[in-house]
Amino acid sequence: MKKFMNSTETMLRESLAGFALCHRDIVALDGDFRFVSRRQAKHGKVALISGGGSGHEPLHAGFVGHGMLDAACPGQIFTSPTPDQMVAAAEAVATGAGILFIVKNYAGDVMNFTLAAEMCSTHADSLVIDDDVAVERSGQGGRRGVAGTMIVEKLVGAAAEAGAGIGALKRLGVSVNGATRSMGVALTSCTAPAVGKPTFDIAGNEMEVGVGIHGEPGRRRVAMMRADEIAEELVHAIVQDLEPPSGCEVLLMVNGLGATPSLELHLMYNAASRQLAKRGLKASRSIVGNYVTSLDMAGCSITVTVLNDELTSLWDAPVHTPALRWRM
Amino acid sequence: MKKFMNSTETMLRESLAGFALCHRDIVALDGDFRFVSRRQAKHGKVALISGGGSGHEPLHAGFVGHGMLDAACPGQIFTSPTPDQMVAAAEAVATGAGILFIVKNYAGDVMNFTLAAEMCSTHADSLVIDDDVAVERSGQGGRRGVAGTMIVEKLVGAAAEAGAGIGALKRLGVSVNGATRSMGVALTSCTAPAVGKPTFDIAGNEMEVGVGIHGEPGRRRVAMMRADEIAEELVHAIVQDLEPPSGCEVLLMVNGLGATPSLELHLMYNAASRQLAKRGLKASRSIVGNYVTSLDMAGCSITVTVLNDELTSLWDAPVHTPALRWRM
Repeated sequence: MKKFMNSTETMLRESLAGFALCHRDIVALDGDFRFVSRRQAKHGKVALISGGGSGHEPLHAGFVGHGMLDAACPGQIFTSPTPDQMVAAAEAVATGAGILFIVKNYAGDVMNFTLAAEMCSTHADSLVIDDDVAVERSGQGGRRGVAGTMIVEKLVGAAAEAGAGIGALKRLGVSVNGATRSMGVALTSCTAPAVGKPTFDIAGNEMEVGVGIHGEPGRRRVAMMRADEIAEELVHAIVQDLEPPSGCEVLLMVNGLGATPSLELHLMYNAASRQLAKRGLKASRSIVGNYVTSLDMAGCSITVTVLNDELTSLWDAPVHTPALRWRM
Repeated sequence: MKKFMNSTETMLRESLAGFALCHRDIVALDGDFRFVSRRQAKHGKVALISGGGSGHEPLHAGFVGHGMLDAACPGQIFTSPTPDQMVAAAEAVATGAGILFIVKNYAGDVMNFTLAAEMCSTHADSLVIDDDVAVERSGQGGRRGVAGTMIVEKLVGAAAEAGAGIGALKRLGVSVNGATRSMGVALTSCTAPAVGKPTFDIAGNEMEVGVGIHGEPGRRRVAMMRADEIAEELVHAIVQDLEPPSGCEVLLMVNGLGATPSLELHLMYNAASRQLAKRGLKASRSIVGNYVTSLDMAGCSITVTVLNDELTSLWDAPVHTPALRWRM
């Protein structure tokens, strides 16, 4: 294992310290490393807080700032943050309008955020994201939450910034989650630092179709396919499950899993666009890059969200975070 | 070799098509794939044009837009674009105020941009970037141009947007290049698609200190070091060569070479900041991410630019490109 680090014990804290130092105009890091919060709080808005295991950067701390999250709680790598972290974040950023936790659908995260919501002195509710169409059941809890989480954070974040109440934000989030599907493919495994070896073995000519963002198995292990074939398989699975209205506009995201370069991601975007067009769908909004990663995994995922005028306008709304910025 | 592609012959064009489609609000792609240009031209400004071999994305096409480049010419992977491409770009974006080519210091690029400048009907000049302190001579031509190129493009781009003339822009560029030094380290080799195998062999416990962005050899091959040791070696080499005034403010860039995740890059930023502080230098401006890459190479580079009030204000000026956006 070759990684830029000093020790596995200090790796996460040193990275968080660097992140907070680099982006100190936008975010602040809690002294006990429990959460990253928005430096310029907005009084009277619902506090949006997310979090999860580290190793998926820039998710979630990279999306703290104007128009997205108020705080993010980083767990250890691939490990849920604790309820204490979430409550501390809530106490730091809540301004009385309530708290909405945005939670990826993994048993540990759901359990800890549920506990945290009960422990909060302010009214707190949770929104669970489960956009991965690859597998129906990962453990006990249904579908996994993957790259669609970033889209939910952007759209719900824009509505929160505009002053929506907690009930409306939860309904919006449920609706965006329902309009969003993702599926990914891995060319290599990630390597968790504390483990020191790849999470799974994969041959030099193989890929894992439907991989999870922690290296969980997908639908099948196959020989490496051409980009057009990969795009067809992923878009087919997404569209079959999503059943978008014919001729509708969608947001198309091609997300890198960590070690795949921009050249290849934009090629996959081209291939995925053609697959959408074949099915009568138009990507009126697009995003390509490393947003929801799996450490040093080579691979990518495709996410499609059905848009309407409201969602398009929320997507276009100003955002100013370390990892996503426009119209500010 | 596992890459997202359909064929090595079509890879670059398909990626450019995806890039142009995804970012069609900002850029346009020439029908013959000769250049990417800014969709909303600004009349009367000096045209800034860069280019070079592909494989370093987002450099250069990702920096076309308000506040940076007017056009970028993508060569084949790791191969200079042709003078014809540069002249076509110049004819498409020049508005009569002259053309400044921003050129990384490699023999092929320098020769082709020089030829193009002679062929242009509008007055054209060139600015050569050679920020890599790792080696004094790579081939015949002196130091290599690496990640500092992006900083030059940002600062000179901001001045061009503000209306500076071609003479002033060239002087500014020379001055920024002189105030900028970089050095990188590779943990793995890149693999050029047409070659199909890694550019160099490197053992599972080794790193290449001072690597070039095409996989050129650096200063030495050593056993993997701790992040603090790597940061110390890179910052030491940079500062020794740059000789910044004591106590001055600098721009610190930690640039990923393609396959290194954000978690590690921010940890390296933290380590590099401490090394600067030890030498009495303060990073008053910072940037961390994949900006000048080497295909799928794992590794990073550190770049330091000595700032003054003028350069700080140019760095802070609005920018709106596919890969760099703020204050718009």
